[in-house]
Amino acid sequence: MQNLFQDLNPPACRLMGPGPVEVDPRVLNAMSMPMLGQFDPRFTSYMNEVMSLYRGIFQTRNEWTLLVDGTARAGIEAVMVSLLSPGDKVLVPVFGRFGHLLAEIAGRCRAEVITIEAEWGQVFDPQQIEDAIIQHRPKLLACVQGDTSTTMAQPLNEIGKICRAHDVLIAVDATASLTGMPLDTDDWQIDAVTAGLQKCLSGPPGIAPITLNDRAAELIQRRKHIEQGIRPDNYQAADGEMIQSNYFDLAMIMDYWSEARLNHHTEATSMLYAARECARIVLQEGWQTRFARHNQTSTALVNGLRAMDLEVFGKDLQYKMPNVTGVVIPKGVDADKLRGEMLHDFAIEIGTSFGPLHGKIWRIGTMGYGCRKDNVLACLAALEMTLRRNGHSAPAGAGVDAALAVYNDPSHDAFSNNITNA
Amino acid sequence: MQNLFQDLNPPACRLMGPGPVEVDPRVLNAMSMPMLGQFDPRFTSYMNEVMSLYRGIFQTRNEWTLLVDGTARAGIEAVMVSLLSPGDKVLVPVFGRFGHLLAEIAGRCRAEVITIEAEWGQVFDPQQIEDAIIQHRPKLLACVQGDTSTTMAQPLNEIGKICRAHDVLIAVDATASLTGMPLDTDDWQIDAVTAGLQKCLSGPPGIAPITLNDRAAELIQRRKHIEQGIRPDNYQAADGEMIQSNYFDLAMIMDYWSEARLNHHTEATSMLYAARECARIVLQEGWQTRFARHNQTSTALVNGLRAMDLEVFGKDLQYKMPNVTGVVIPKGVDADKLRGEMLHDFAIEIGTSFGPLHGKIWRIGTMGYGCRKDNVLACLAALEMTLRRNGHSAPAGAGVDAALAVYNDPSHDAFSNNITNA
Repeated sequence: MQNLFQDLNPPACRLMGPGPVEVDPRVLNAMSMPMLGQFDPRFTSYMNEVMSLYRGIFQTRNEWTLLVDGTARAGIEAVMVSLLSPGDKVLVPVFGRFGHLLAEIAGRCRAEVITIEAEWGQVFDPQQIEDAIIQHRPKLLACVQGDTSTTMAQPLNEIGKICRAHDVLIAVDATASLTGMPLDTDDWQIDAVTAGLQKCLSGPPGIAPITLNDRAAELIQRRKHIEQGIRPDNYQAADGEMIQSNYFDLAMIMDYWSEARLNHHTEATSMLYAARECARIVLQEGWQTRFARHNQTSTALVNGLRAMDLEVFGKDLQYKMPNVTGVVIPKGVDADKLRGEMLHDFAIEIGTSFGPLHGKIWRIGTMGYGCRKDNVLACLAALEMTLRRNGHSAPAGAGVDAALAVYNDPSHDAFSNNITNA
Repeated sequence: MQNLFQDLNPPACRLMGPGPVEVDPRVLNAMSMPMLGQFDPRFTSYMNEVMSLYRGIFQTRNEWTLLVDGTARAGIEAVMVSLLSPGDKVLVPVFGRFGHLLAEIAGRCRAEVITIEAEWGQVFDPQQIEDAIIQHRPKLLACVQGDTSTTMAQPLNEIGKICRAHDVLIAVDATASLTGMPLDTDDWQIDAVTAGLQKCLSGPPGIAPITLNDRAAELIQRRKHIEQGIRPDNYQAADGEMIQSNYFDLAMIMDYWSEARLNHHTEATSMLYAARECARIVLQEGWQTRFARHNQTSTALVNGLRAMDLEVFGKDLQYKMPNVTGVVIPKGVDADKLRGEMLHDFAIEIGTSFGPLHGKIWRIGTMGYGCRKDNVLACLAALEMTLRRNGHSAPAGAGVDAALAVYNDPSHDAFSNNITNA
């Protein structure tokens, strides 16, 4: 007899790792709405609304602003495989795990991949990137904005302009940073941006908003090959090399999202509902309030951690992402045991780390709906209690007091990163 | 000022097209549950439960029974790109649109694709397939079980054995048929099966259950290349050619679903909750009851349509899928106008058609949660009313009476297809 298991009943948790994070209840509610047929005009209107809302999210006028049905890396792969033909040269500045991922995906598209690397915890000077562009003359520069693996964000406001000046395309993966810090797609001259819902957008993982400007879209359109079985009469494929994935063929996906509505996949209805609500919540809050909230929470958390005699990870904290903070694990503390106690005793999840930082730092996320005073204070209090039981004693209450001081300081300028280096 | 649009409020519809169909309210409810961290033991337990439940759904003992995060065609592409190396020979028996899709996806994997074609509305004799295998000696046979584009299902119980005898792998796309009619993965010796939720499983589109037997899994494992940034120390990649997609690299996806829990994507939490509940609902109902319900509803619908002087599509209805029925559009009726009136006046969606059947048939789905007496009767009644206003008069009430007669007949053998040819 087949075991049918228990009714689904996930416990409430404060998800303060690097993502997925707590989903806004408005988004959970949106996902419980009934289906519509994929070509029902009420549904295609929702698709058009999603395009419009994400133009706001990406700060762009790009027509081709849509969803790829998969997790954040599906969006990355769709852009890469649609832009890159075999042998094309790609430059990837790697400053954490997700830079490696971009390089890996580009390699599987059979591109020639060149990487430059920064030590984990640091970012690149724009000049380093320009030098590498001049040296290697890539077709595409692929770069992460915020890499949660190191908690650092690469400033991009100059990089787009450098790429444009050298006639290089630039694709940015903003999964971890989008709506937690500024990303001005058009102003910064970024050709393609990809993201996911499960970080600051406060939705579930599983769908990837992307935007493409005309430079990127035209290149992709030149590779359009409509699949047999739905081709119009007198069909002639474009001259460009066929994209090596059907699922990630953005030329066909653009047709599906255009008024032509040429069938490709069946749009992931509930995830589209979620994505739509995520965007509305962000745009309703407004950018100033939103960035201030993330910056203030970041400062409160950093000050709280330091008051507990903990070291915040990173040499130059002006580059720290406001929505994730690395904490150096104190000597003698069993890192995974402490995380287990935080989760099972206090229902608070904090993150472990990858690669060169594994076992060296924890990562605490304060993203979107989860970026809240109560989360920061509950986390600091639980961390103090748990650390004390694991051999690291902090002054009683000092972490929470220091965080509260930030929230209660009427002169606190929440509109910029005001974390000082240690 | 950004337009934030109205609150999400999709109207209730009877979705009786070829999919997506109505989602079971239990599944909608599951999707409104809160997130868990992806490595939280409560969440990885849910992943393991999903593997177990889908072994039941696929009627298999295959260890590698898991979800690919994308729509149904994501599952197909994951299997194809992971099994096929460039130059491998693939045989695809095409009897509708989704056979063309399999051929198309295989081609993009740079396989050598051979197709044999049946007229839309017919299926293959197993001997035709065996002859083609002997002639072409493919590595893989890729075949659709039920192709909604033609409403026909290819009997597969002999095909798996034929493939095994000739040492050919067989991958089946059961998206449209799974749990609406039998599919015995192990008994039929199928090496890989792919599906989606949005048909008889009565979930939303956006996640793809798949199963792989050891023959398929071993081939894939020989191509394992773990991505840089999360490689264990002393890592050595497998000898086989690297899979040309990162997102669809089943070797890495299997690692993520194994106890190693090596990070790949971030599992689509809400969609996994949905998939879990879909499977529980099916297994709770039981196969006999479920297949009987689909067969009885199919017979009721066919008899109802015929009583309205409508022709049911297909030369040999023993091959008609129980969960979708083609209706020949009567001469003089504007097919799309009628569909619009059905949708906007009666909130009933029926399907249009693709390719050679475009403009010739409507398709009526009766799948999973949507496979209900009230749906069939409401559809027949609305169709009668709408047809009359569009120039096709059927005897008043005859369709509903004929359908009700099937439901009210105590001697009706609901356990088999008892639709006679016209």
